[in-house]
Amino acid sequence: MQTFTDQDIAAMDKLTRVQFATSLPGAKPISLIGTTDLAGQCNLAPFSSVLHLGSSPCLLGMVSRPDLVERHTLANLTEVRAWTINHLHPAILDAAHQCSARYPKDVSEFAATGLSAHFHPGFLAPFVAESRFRIGLELEDIIPIPANGTRLIVGRVVLVQVAEENMLDHGGIDLTGVDCLASTALDTYFQLRPLARLAHAMPGQDPQRI
Amino acid sequence: MQTFTDQDIAAMDKLTRVQFATSLPGAKPISLIGTTDLAGQCNLAPFSSVLHLGSSPCLLGMVSRPDLVERHTLANLTEVRAWTINHLHPAILDAAHQCSARYPKDVSEFAATGLSAHFHPGFLAPFVAESRFRIGLELEDIIPIPANGTRLIVGRVVLVQVAEENMLDHGGIDLTGVDCLASTALDTYFQLRPLARLAHAMPGQDPQRI
Repeated sequence: MQTFTDQDIAAMDKLTRVQFATSLPGAKPISLIGTTDLAGQCNLAPFSSVLHLGSSPCLLGMVSRPDLVERHTLANLTEVRAWTINHLHPAILDAAHQCSARYPKDVSEFAATGLSAHFHPGFLAPFVAESRFRIGLELEDIIPIPANGTRLIVGRVVLVQVAEENMLDHGGIDLTGVDCLASTALDTYFQLRPLARLAHAMPGQDPQRI
Repeated sequence: MQTFTDQDIAAMDKLTRVQFATSLPGAKPISLIGTTDLAGQCNLAPFSSVLHLGSSPCLLGMVSRPDLVERHTLANLTEVRAWTINHLHPAILDAAHQCSARYPKDVSEFAATGLSAHFHPGFLAPFVAESRFRIGLELEDIIPIPANGTRLIVGRVVLVQVAEENMLDHGGIDLTGVDCLASTALDTYFQLRPLARLAHAMPGQDPQRI
């Protein structure tokens, strides 16, 4: 094993350090965050920091860095208090990655990449029509992370859209059925290959595959 | 597409709702968090909420729920101010999942599951010897999430251990080389299949595969 210390990491050149640091979580989720301002100017941005915060109420979080691309997302969801999470599949990966380009605020990434906006009645933020697994959220909280000036955005899930055939009997969603992707570093994408489902673990019992 | 509203989600029975809610982020990272108390009683717990917070300094976060299993982790890392992230591969998946069983605090999950503790000189928290990709962190902050009483634990990366052959030229780590896993819901695990690496996106340029 090679060991890197914090001094080794600090001594890396900037892009190497970013690729290294963004590899550390392992497999990351990757989705397109859809927002709009109150004038109807839409925005799409890829995020790889969406995480589960709670099931009752159903809460998800994501981290916004204080940079240009993500500021459009943060400004819009602060204004409208709603946003969407749109999971990727291979056919929309290139368009989704292109949404990470630094377009000016008056350019919609929908128009720039050819993805289509889909609106749900009564919900302001745009969904990606081509996504097979979409989530609508309302803003619950924005929590500052003092260590580096990032923010944890907390949302309450109010809409989930997925094909009925991709709902599993136990309540979960069939990620390989929707061909959901994973990511790592800044630029690397994976498909998922099912490995195992394991029964609820109990002390003194051997692990059981379902 | 089937649409679930927040009322639909609230009406689900508890286990169904938890499986549903923990499916929403898509592919989640999964790793074993290694901690110890000051008396040397070690603990291992699987977490699927590790995320990148920043590269300079190199910061990772994870969410701790206020339940029994994760409280051992939270109590230990509050006491010792250090912990480890140990990525999984297929050969240690069953043992890692078994660490989610509710063992009493005086039982080490290392002893209960047969995984081996590995200590790095000068670093108190235990690594999992069998892991192929290990990270040591020092506590930076614990941030309350008022919406549901969970906490965001923020750590500064001080050690990373991975085989030299799994370091990529661009600085990232070869997740398929270490056979890193992804997870979803409470109980479902995936291997990663490489799909694409895409060049830095620029407005007006077509997406380019590397």
